[in-house]
Amino acid sequence: MSQAQANSTMGKRPLMALQRAINMQVRVRLKNMLEYRGRLINVDSYMNLFLDEAFEHQKDGRVSEKLGRVVIRGNNVLYIVLGDEALI
Amino acid sequence: MSQAQANSTMGKRPLMALQRAINMQVRVRLKNMLEYRGRLINVDSYMNLFLDEAFEHQKDGRVSEKLGRVVIRGNNVLYIVLGDEALI
Amino acid sequence: MSQAQANSTMGKRPLMALQRAINMQVRVRLKNMLEYRGRLINVDSYMNLFLDEAFEHQKDGRVSEKLGRVVIRGNNVLYIVLGDEALI
Amino acid sequence: MSQAQANSTMGKRPLMALQRAINMQVRVRLKNMLEYRGRLINVDSYMNLFLDEAFEHQKDGRVSEKLGRVVIRGNNVLYIVLGDEALI
Amino acid sequence: MSQAQANSTMGKRPLMALQRAINMQVRVRLKNMLEYRGRLINVDSYMNLFLDEAFEHQKDGRVSEKLGRVVIRGNNVLYIVLGDEALI
Amino acid sequence: MSQAQANSTMGKRPLMALQRAINMQVRVRLKNMLEYRGRLINVDSYMNLFLDEAFEHQKDGRVSEKLGRVVIRGNNVLYIVLGDEALI
Amino acid sequence: MSQAQANSTMGKRPLMALQRAINMQVRVRLKNMLEYRGRLINVDSYMNLFLDEAFEHQKDGRVSEKLGRVVIRGNNVLYIVLGDEALI
Repeated sequence: MSQAQANSTMGKRPLMALQRAINMQVRVRLKNMLEYRGRLINVDSYMNLFLDEAFEHQKDGRVSEKLGRVVIRGNNVLYIVLGDEALI
Repeated sequence: MSQAQANSTMGKRPLMALQRAINMQVRVRLKNMLEYRGRLINVDSYMNLFLDEAFEHQKDGRVSEKLGRVVIRGNNVLYIVLGDEALI
Repeated sequence: MSQAQANSTMGKRPLMALQRAINMQVRVRLKNMLEYRGRLINVDSYMNLFLDEAFEHQKDGRVSEKLGRVVIRGNNVLYIVLGDEALI
Repeated sequence: MSQAQANSTMGKRPLMALQRAINMQVRVRLKNMLEYRGRLINVDSYMNLFLDEAFEHQKDGRVSEKLGRVVIRGNNVLYIVLGDEALI
Repeated sequence: MSQAQANSTMGKRPLMALQRAINMQVRVRLKNMLEYRGRLINVDSYMNLFLDEAFEHQKDGRVSEKLGRVVIRGNNVLYIVLGDEALI
Repeated sequence: MSQAQANSTMGKRPLMALQRAINMQVRVRLKNMLEYRGRLINVDSYMNLFLDEAFEHQKDGRVSEKLGRVVIRGNNVLYIVLGDEALI
Repeated sequence: MSQAQANSTMGKRPLMALQRAINMQVRVRLKNMLEYRGRLINVDSYMNLFLDEAFEHQKDGRVSEKLGRVVIRGNNVLYIVLGDEALI
């Protein structure tokens, strides 16, 4: 594998994909099935997330609370939606 | 990335965001959905929190108990609200 | 054991099997019994998964949501189906 | 930050706050919502606690059992109340 | 203990017993009581398992799904049956 | 702090308190609320316990089973009662 | 402490007690309250167990399944009964 190929593969690693989503809109589903939508300010390797303009959504999608700036502890995360599907 | 840029990114990391909230009002939601509001005295990298003037709130927002000075074990934390939304 | 045999055994290790499934269709069952089907972009040693064109399926197989590009936190994973059975 | 300031910040870290509460009355809420009140003899970095003159209290505050000298395993801890609110 | 005795004891360690079962039929019971039967391709020290020709069985033994090639995350494992009882 | 004071503090640490209880009667409450009473033969830093003459007690205190010599895995422990209250 | 005393204490540590039970009959209670009885072939420091001639027993003691040779993942273990009480 060339250095260029290795870099390309690294850039696709799950934690790197999260790094590339910084400043973008994300949807974070937690284990308790609540969902948090907001702009990703930063994320660390444990998947601790720092969001801005965040809202809590119930399972049916309804907003239940405005949270604003919030740090979510990574061990609660089920999945994080990036890209177009995070914009709805 | 310049040193200045690196510092700026580091300062946005989730754990650094918590450090910057020291002495400010925060809202801490635990996995059991109870919420603790108070002034953040300190926090460590495991998200153990030391709060002062803390109150326990039920899911519906009602105060259920005054706790005063309290150390919350980090592994129970779901999320921590910083900034304006922590002031309500 | 010869070097060739050692390489052959290593290539069959669970985490290597996941690496070989990159760019292929996979089915990921989580502990909460929800299932995610999509193309595996990358996976790390913690089983954090980065999927594209992902859909959430209920226990009965019905699609409940389109997720698109999604990072699934590895500790939620029950199992990952590779190969032909992942294509249904 | 001066050395004096650094020491002052360290002294406020959650685990240091617990160290300073040694020999004082504390209230320990566990994840199962039972509460233990007693004098803190010692505590380690995992939040394992050694209490003396400890009593178990139900969620409604009633004493359910006298325990006397007891070691509580740290991973069960939800929070620890220090200071005046621990004296009730 | 002689070197021969030490080798003999090591070969009986739980993780070594799993290594010796490679290419054999196994029954894997998970914490959620679902059972997976198939041929063990490989296993690592975390008990991540790579099975081929795998089927999911309900608690009563009935097959509920064909999975084919599947990687099971080790932390879900309750026990793994080796030998004759894995052949039924 | 003098060396003598440091030694005195160390001797009160939770894990040291358990070491000092070796050969004494203890009451071990597990997370599932079952209780085990017996003589503590030994304990390690993970709170794995080796008891002799052990009995299992239901929540209401009734003996449900004689276990004799038993090793309890530490991660199940809620608390361990030492001293007089362990003698009832 | 003399070397002889130190060896004597080490031999009583919980994990050493399990090592001494190799080739003997044991009763293994899991967190889900199912019990496995069989001859202990080997055990590691994580309490992964390798049993032979193993049977699964329901809470009421009835045999529910013959398992034969089985590896039990250590994190599921509640306790392990050694000695005479393991022979019933």
